[in-house]
Amino acid sequence: MLAQPHYKNDLSAAINRKDFATVKKLFEHWLPLDLAPILAELPVEELAALFRHTTEEIAASTFAYLQSGAQKKLLRLLHTSQAGALLNALAPDDRTAFLDELPPDVAAQMIALLSPEERQVTQTLLAYPENSVGRMMTLDFVAVRPEWTVRESLDFIRSHGYDRETLNIIYAVDEQGRLIDDVRVRRFLISPPETPVSALLDGNYAHLSPTDDRETALGIFRKYDRIALPVTDDAKRIIGIVTVDDMLDVAAEEATEDIQKLGGSEALDEPYTTISLSRMFRKRAGWLMALFIGEMFTATAMGFFQNEIERVIVLALFVPLVISAGGNAGSQAATLVIRSLALGEFKLRDWWRVMRREIIMGLALGVVLGTVGFLRIEIWAGLGFDYGAHHILLAGTVGIALIGIVLWGSLAGSMLPLLMKKAGFDPAASSAPFVATLVDVTGLIIYFSVAYLIMLR
Amino acid sequence: MLAQPHYKNDLSAAINRKDFATVKKLFEHWLPLDLAPILAELPVEELAALFRHTTEEIAASTFAYLQSGAQKKLLRLLHTSQAGALLNALAPDDRTAFLDELPPDVAAQMIALLSPEERQVTQTLLAYPENSVGRMMTLDFVAVRPEWTVRESLDFIRSHGYDRETLNIIYAVDEQGRLIDDVRVRRFLISPPETPVSALLDGNYAHLSPTDDRETALGIFRKYDRIALPVTDDAKRIIGIVTVDDMLDVAAEEATEDIQKLGGSEALDEPYTTISLSRMFRKRAGWLMALFIGEMFTATAMGFFQNEIERVIVLALFVPLVISAGGNAGSQAATLVIRSLALGEFKLRDWWRVMRREIIMGLALGVVLGTVGFLRIEIWAGLGFDYGAHHILLAGTVGIALIGIVLWGSLAGSMLPLLMKKAGFDPAASSAPFVATLVDVTGLIIYFSVAYLIMLR
Repeated sequence: MLAQPHYKNDLSAAINRKDFATVKKLFEHWLPLDLAPILAELPVEELAALFRHTTEEIAASTFAYLQSGAQKKLLRLLHTSQAGALLNALAPDDRTAFLDELPPDVAAQMIALLSPEERQVTQTLLAYPENSVGRMMTLDFVAVRPEWTVRESLDFIRSHGYDRETLNIIYAVDEQGRLIDDVRVRRFLISPPETPVSALLDGNYAHLSPTDDRETALGIFRKYDRIALPVTDDAKRIIGIVTVDDMLDVAAEEATEDIQKLGGSEALDEPYTTISLSRMFRKRAGWLMALFIGEMFTATAMGFFQNEIERVIVLALFVPLVISAGGNAGSQAATLVIRSLALGEFKLRDWWRVMRREIIMGLALGVVLGTVGFLRIEIWAGLGFDYGAHHILLAGTVGIALIGIVLWGSLAGSMLPLLMKKAGFDPAASSAPFVATLVDVTGLIIYFSVAYLIMLR
Repeated sequence: MLAQPHYKNDLSAAINRKDFATVKKLFEHWLPLDLAPILAELPVEELAALFRHTTEEIAASTFAYLQSGAQKKLLRLLHTSQAGALLNALAPDDRTAFLDELPPDVAAQMIALLSPEERQVTQTLLAYPENSVGRMMTLDFVAVRPEWTVRESLDFIRSHGYDRETLNIIYAVDEQGRLIDDVRVRRFLISPPETPVSALLDGNYAHLSPTDDRETALGIFRKYDRIALPVTDDAKRIIGIVTVDDMLDVAAEEATEDIQKLGGSEALDEPYTTISLSRMFRKRAGWLMALFIGEMFTATAMGFFQNEIERVIVLALFVPLVISAGGNAGSQAATLVIRSLALGEFKLRDWWRVMRREIIMGLALGVVLGTVGFLRIEIWAGLGFDYGAHHILLAGTVGIALIGIVLWGSLAGSMLPLLMKKAGFDPAASSAPFVATLVDVTGLIIYFSVAYLIMLR
């Protein structure tokens, strides 16, 4: 993707032959920000060697690009003093993200390496709840005063702004540092130098609270197409900003969590390819066991109908077909509703609209499957399969049961996520397998009840 | 979220009493960009009334914020001349997005309303494949020449740049308009006015091709934390840029598609709450029917074992328990692998690493479930449930079958998405219900074969 593909190789070669003069030359003119993603692709061993000879700024922005696994490995390769310097040079939000991944005791050791100021900042950020906006704030922002002119502001930025990553939006604050407005930097570029900043203000800005959930923030970014949003404390003082590039990661992580839960396991919270087998086992075994225990009721339910099965053995043949149809209809409905909820397409109080849709949908789908099921048995019977003398009754049983079960599956699948949310759980936990299990048990009861009414009375 | 919550109501009131002087006052100092998300929340009728009295710029940026449903409704409320003016004022990428949603003939009518230049631009963009970068480019970007100074560049921007939404990154081009480099606008702010632009260049930039898939673009944005990426043609001429805020929408849409497919239906491509029931039926019935037909083989499979079932009726009681365990293990594995693939955590050629993990995982999970299954039967038997004289054999059958089936489920679930991808299909199509169906049929065969070996010989 980058302009010079060979660049990385040259770099790697120079590092390996310890030729740091060449490395230095290769770094000329480059912004640490632009180097970081390239360097992040080098093996940690090379990075460790490199970090001993490069500026802290480059080391820090590269470190921020690494996966937490590589970060830990790299820090272990550095001397404590280097590690400390690196940690101190990290942007506060990157540091928080890194410390988050560590066991508390290790994190504490790391924090001990920080300078008093940096330590204080870090502890403030770490004090915010997990997945909150506060955890992902950057403290890098430029604030100007409304009474300044554009020229004064630009001079101020020239003298202070160099290391600000986030100079796309400039914030106007009053003497107490309370946020007055946000101004896109382009307004400064295109306004005559003598314009007072106040003339650029429209008093219209979105802002976040450090305790907001990061999903909330994501929604606001999506809605207002902002590049960055200011974070204000209770006194409306601006204490940091959140940038949209972090939001891309949040979006990916949130989707991954939902998808993994929908698949019927806990969210892994780390890449499938690198998570330890024991941790993955724990994340998967829990749900699998819960589903298994739930599914045991199918054996109990079928036990009740053992005599019916003995009388009409062929009933048993269609058990998997009938109950799985309900499970599939249910997992469709659940997934659609869960995603719709996550995107905020409707509120809990609209549950009735959803239910109405699913009743219609469940009936329609049930009639279709029921008809096909009926025909399947009649045709096979016609072809000479031995479904007993009363195959027409069997066909009717399967057909009618399918209508009821698919309808019930769609209803259960669509309402369960809403109940989950109502009860304060994550709707995504009402996964396809979860709904299927629920519907299997009830489906059996529906199936054999219909069979009893039609064939066995 | 916005500074003035009452603002929207005042606006709404003024519009309804046709007091457009007040509206005009309310708009003072506001950038169309900032107004848009607020106005977009008004009912389309009010917007139609408003658009007759507001600038095209405001109308256009508001229109871009509306959902495609509202957009269509709104255009119908406007006179053709107004509709034409609005369409001409739209940003090219917003226009393409809108036209994309229309039936071809309607789209053609709309395009006919465009000025020759705009029509040409639109047709160029629409010529790019769906979901390609070309479709979502904006043509709003600022390009300067390396030999200019910072002051010259800023003057140029002041005189031309006003309506550029995307003035966060400035592009240096040669006399043929070929891209030389991208420069963050802050570099211009913080550099002395006499600095030549060439001094700000590091020759390092990422760029996209208009035919790149939007998912590819998303990956690059995520990797390089860019706010915008330039799009270049084969001659490396810059023809547009893609901005990160569009990427947030792409991320959401891609996740929605995957989630809906994983739930066992087609991607709806529109909100669950607004899609017509008939369209939703088509999206859901197809997969449900396919799964149903696949599941029919369970009836066939069980038919083969009818005699075994007649001899040991209790075998039937545990069919749903045993096969669902395989289905659940399979949908776990499938979901984890699909998401991991989507995030690019591993490549197809790593299939063996995945298979190894799933063999271990499947065995471990299978042994756990198998043991529990075994105990379940023995304990119930101990409690006096009638599982026949040979309940220990039954327990053994269920236990061993579970190990085999869970292992098989994990394997099938993890490999199926890879095969899908290999075959050029969307891995997400190998959904939880799909895997479950596949494993149900094979699970039955495993179960009854084990039963045959242990109990029925």
